[in-house]
Amino acid sequence: MPEATSNINPPARVLLVGYGVVGKRVADAIHQQPDMQLVGVVDASAGSLQRTAVDRQYPVFASSPDRLAAFKEAGIQTSGIMAEALPHSDIVIDAAPKGVTAQNVEQYAQAGKSFIVNGGEKHSLTNFSFSSLANYRAGIGKSKIRVVSCNTTALCRMLTALRRVDAIADSFVVIVRRGADPVRTSDGPINALVPVLGGASHHASDVQTVIPDLRISSMAVKVSTTLTHLHMLRVTFQGAVDEDHVKDTLRTNPRITMVRGSDGIISNAHVLELYRDRLRPRGDVWEVAVWEDSIHVMDKTVELCYCVHMESIIVPENVDAVRASLRLQSEPEIAVVMTDRAMGFHDPGWRYDVL
Amino acid sequence: MPEATSNINPPARVLLVGYGVVGKRVADAIHQQPDMQLVGVVDASAGSLQRTAVDRQYPVFASSPDRLAAFKEAGIQTSGIMAEALPHSDIVIDAAPKGVTAQNVEQYAQAGKSFIVNGGEKHSLTNFSFSSLANYRAGIGKSKIRVVSCNTTALCRMLTALRRVDAIADSFVVIVRRGADPVRTSDGPINALVPVLGGASHHASDVQTVIPDLRISSMAVKVSTTLTHLHMLRVTFQGAVDEDHVKDTLRTNPRITMVRGSDGIISNAHVLELYRDRLRPRGDVWEVAVWEDSIHVMDKTVELCYCVHMESIIVPENVDAVRASLRLQSEPEIAVVMTDRAMGFHDPGWRYDVL
Repeated sequence: MPEATSNINPPARVLLVGYGVVGKRVADAIHQQPDMQLVGVVDASAGSLQRTAVDRQYPVFASSPDRLAAFKEAGIQTSGIMAEALPHSDIVIDAAPKGVTAQNVEQYAQAGKSFIVNGGEKHSLTNFSFSSLANYRAGIGKSKIRVVSCNTTALCRMLTALRRVDAIADSFVVIVRRGADPVRTSDGPINALVPVLGGASHHASDVQTVIPDLRISSMAVKVSTTLTHLHMLRVTFQGAVDEDHVKDTLRTNPRITMVRGSDGIISNAHVLELYRDRLRPRGDVWEVAVWEDSIHVMDKTVELCYCVHMESIIVPENVDAVRASLRLQSEPEIAVVMTDRAMGFHDPGWRYDVL
Repeated sequence: MPEATSNINPPARVLLVGYGVVGKRVADAIHQQPDMQLVGVVDASAGSLQRTAVDRQYPVFASSPDRLAAFKEAGIQTSGIMAEALPHSDIVIDAAPKGVTAQNVEQYAQAGKSFIVNGGEKHSLTNFSFSSLANYRAGIGKSKIRVVSCNTTALCRMLTALRRVDAIADSFVVIVRRGADPVRTSDGPINALVPVLGGASHHASDVQTVIPDLRISSMAVKVSTTLTHLHMLRVTFQGAVDEDHVKDTLRTNPRITMVRGSDGIISNAHVLELYRDRLRPRGDVWEVAVWEDSIHVMDKTVELCYCVHMESIIVPENVDAVRASLRLQSEPEIAVVMTDRAMGFHDPGWRYDVL
């Protein structure tokens, strides 16, 4: 197990743009890293959520001059506007809404700053898609990085882990998607199943932006829940595989955890409740939570299911992406363990040396 | 296209036991058949639902002498008890709750009556599982028949149809199950995903009770909806297949219908609304409703999704089972078209001659 190295350089200065579902979580995680400094958080809106940033003593910046009045009116102290924060930043993590990000990145580029965007954006925006456990090394020194979406992140972790069992001949996933995040109260469905139509879902091709040589197809359906996504994954290997080997490989893989129906964890609600009881911030589940008793091995084929906490699973990968882009660490096993330790979810059973 | 033959024999006398979700629908369908007579309906409960049977002028029987008082108290006229109806019946369709059926079948056997049970029961109760489009001929003359469950019925229809495209090398289905029927208001989940754990779901092995030589595996998850199940089916054929051939085969297969997201049918709620607008009794969907624009063909593999109206899809197969058991028709293409015409959902595009 590698030790997190002490940092002799000044901390990397990270600006967080878009203080929403993802951004607020990434800001907290960056704030916890020993080798990083949160320059501040940028948002266009001024409300309760932005006030929590002030409570945490994060410098708050308005996204543009015309937004300053809203902050003043809401009584939220700002440190200025985004353009004033950029010169003091080494890198920007953008978690702004779709459309906004595309405009923002032009500003980052003009200011000569590296940036990280999140999974809602297209691969073509950065021409490099990142999921640390799959391709950390390829991200080293990249000035533009796209951290893939929650579903793709989970798939990249799982398929990278399963490739350690044996070469994968074929894979197929059905993604049972949560209808909306908990606070998106105007979204649905509340009593319907909405399949993704028009051919395969985009998830398979999105995984291939990170793992190009993987054979995978995917289908998806949106359902009436706000808690997590759930994946039904079927992988066919080149040869027959052993069930214990599959389980051991997953159990020891960083950022994958095992839960069991036989332990009372019989739904995604039970998974979330477990993490609330573990006092995770916001009840977040940064790991892929695999049901050990869903794992079904038949000769060359493995079927299993797991849940994906869409609000939080991509937070560690955002942190890793900073380390890769700014060359803070060249070894994935060190970069990842640093993130996990600083966030407080390092599991002593995880083998970082496989990375 | 075969013509429904006119019936020169007296109608087959059918007793319906268990006037619940399935039973009430099967009673109506039996009542519509030209070659069958509904002897009456049997139930243990006396309430609004049983009163609808009286409204339809179906003779109502109490399940046992000790239940007569409840019917009297509710002001529901009965024609006696089940034991009095049995001698006047040629066959019983049992749609009673689990546990009750197991007791009932002893009575049917003692009375020397053929019987049909429904999918909630085990294969071993009859040692013959039936799904007309897959194995009608094997059911001819059988005195004990189990009509398989809603999910298995849909799978048997689909896989039997797809086998006409080419030999199936492998198949895999993810079953997204409705949490509960609409009136099961004490059931859940209301905001969770509940996977079936402990290895494969029972659906694959249940299909094999009808189609023993089929290679299939299955996974299932219960979700927060009351409308329909939804299947994500992936079939790998022995050779490459043509997408138009797959679509034509499904479109012309009895009891399979095509819907399209491009037509505005984007969820199972939209499918049900379509059938309400078509003025189907109770809004029932007896067909497997396949999304044409979900069909995705890659070389030897087809992926598609469809919805399964769990309350009603097994009704036509119950009717067919009567015809098979009592040898009313020896040709599946005639038996099935008779059922479909009498129920009023015969589609002129369906090719019954493939059966």
